[in-house]
Amino acid sequence: MAREFDLVDWIRSRQPCSALVPVPAGDDMAVLKWPPEQLLLVGVDQVLDTVHFDSAVHAPRDIGRKAMNRNLSDCAAMACLPVAAVAAVALKQGSSLEYAQELYLGMQDAAAAFGAVVVGGDTGSWRGNLVMTVTILGRSAEVQPVRRRGARPGDGLYVTGALGGSLLGRHMTFVPRVAEGRVLGRCGSVTAMIDLSDGLSRDLLHLCKASEVGAVVDAASVPVHPDAVELSRRDGKRAIEHALHDGEDYELLFTSRSAPPIGKRIGTISAERSLLIEIDGRQTPLEAGGWEHEL
Amino acid sequence: MAREFDLVDWIRSRQPCSALVPVPAGDDMAVLKWPPEQLLLVGVDQVLDTVHFDSAVHAPRDIGRKAMNRNLSDCAAMACLPVAAVAAVALKQGSSLEYAQELYLGMQDAAAAFGAVVVGGDTGSWRGNLVMTVTILGRSAEVQPVRRRGARPGDGLYVTGALGGSLLGRHMTFVPRVAEGRVLGRCGSVTAMIDLSDGLSRDLLHLCKASEVGAVVDAASVPVHPDAVELSRRDGKRAIEHALHDGEDYELLFTSRSAPPIGKRIGTISAERSLLIEIDGRQTPLEAGGWEHEL
Repeated sequence: MAREFDLVDWIRSRQPCSALVPVPAGDDMAVLKWPPEQLLLVGVDQVLDTVHFDSAVHAPRDIGRKAMNRNLSDCAAMACLPVAAVAAVALKQGSSLEYAQELYLGMQDAAAAFGAVVVGGDTGSWRGNLVMTVTILGRSAEVQPVRRRGARPGDGLYVTGALGGSLLGRHMTFVPRVAEGRVLGRCGSVTAMIDLSDGLSRDLLHLCKASEVGAVVDAASVPVHPDAVELSRRDGKRAIEHALHDGEDYELLFTSRSAPPIGKRIGTISAERSLLIEIDGRQTPLEAGGWEHEL
Repeated sequence: MAREFDLVDWIRSRQPCSALVPVPAGDDMAVLKWPPEQLLLVGVDQVLDTVHFDSAVHAPRDIGRKAMNRNLSDCAAMACLPVAAVAAVALKQGSSLEYAQELYLGMQDAAAAFGAVVVGGDTGSWRGNLVMTVTILGRSAEVQPVRRRGARPGDGLYVTGALGGSLLGRHMTFVPRVAEGRVLGRCGSVTAMIDLSDGLSRDLLHLCKASEVGAVVDAASVPVHPDAVELSRRDGKRAIEHALHDGEDYELLFTSRSAPPIGKRIGTISAERSLLIEIDGRQTPLEAGGWEHEL
């Protein structure tokens, strides 16, 4: 079975260079020189019924909101300003007009919170389950995009908020860190950034791989969300495990040469290309245990 | 059951006006002032297994190509130059890396034929069937976008090629009329345009509704594709019925004040807001019999 990241590597290897695309694929969004002296950022993200939400449980407005917010979180990771979005929706056959409207209103609400507008779309219905795909356009607007590559040995490693247990509900209701992304992009010391969708351990691996570095995470410094504590009560796993490996936190993970204006330090970038976790003074390998999309 | 066009009407009614979006929703693509003195066009289109293709029958490269070509056909309809695309793919669980690569290569081939590049994407897998969603970015590049609205009584009605019977295979292998769209946009006499995806009778209804006009189609002038003749042999319907109502021709339907450089005249725009078909000198109502996406 193929894994998503094999495919991404393969696509990257085939991407033609051009005056239009100054940054090769592999970041949270594509970066285009459009017009030549400015940057246009484009991201696309789909949510699938039973994978990213459950249409039997979640209200359509919440589903629409999540579909948009995942894209806004990509904007946050690239420190860009979301401007416009288009959406494609594959509805379950027999869905009502009201249901489709609720999906749209959820997207519109989420976009409007950051001044972006839904400018177009495509709807269809089929025998399958609900699929929503949102494409977002962002402007760099005087803040250079922050990429996954750029972290250097000695940089501090930071997160914008507490992690773990988002499955208890936060994965549907999170607020994308667009404002935080802009602050971090503007401050001048942030060297690399990614949003936490696959889980801290796995997204850290992506960032370190792109930057050709390693990292040491200090377990005691990782901010553990109350939801992770609650989940640990239910399933017996330690709360820190949830904070390290659960997906869909949608906080920003970033590296910085000096103390950034926001964020909690959780570790340090190293020259050795391995991920380590330090617990009570002892370092052991940090396995990427988050969510990898299996093809 | 809701119909797609009810939803589009409703979305249009909610769309905020802005300096960014000079043209309200409802055309084949959204038009943005980006940068303010130029136009950026954005379109999105999804293809669904068992609706737009059949993964049990069609090769992944052909499916990828169709997903891209439908978007390029939207560019053709707006007379813009396709530049860049992003794609989201929901794969059937257990799909191989090779299968995903073939989908991508099909998209890349189709885009490259018109100088456009695939700059980013999102892949995931689920228990459902294959979904591919492509978002295309186009530039007006010194040709004003041609919209659905703009047709005036007395304008001639034209198509770029023969119609009907595309289900025999052309719906997978068509060449989008990007070059023709540019020629027509540039010539100065074309007043409205749409690509034929839902069928001549239905897409003509969209164009006339947007332009607040009607039309008289001369049945004898409609170019009937050999596939429509073949299909009529098989199903007993007349070939002209296939030409009038079958979907997925992906030719351009347009109106022009004077003889355009390309295209075959098939009728005339009228002030009366009805669609009529003239057969042997007799005019009868032309029912929109094409494919309406049922929600």
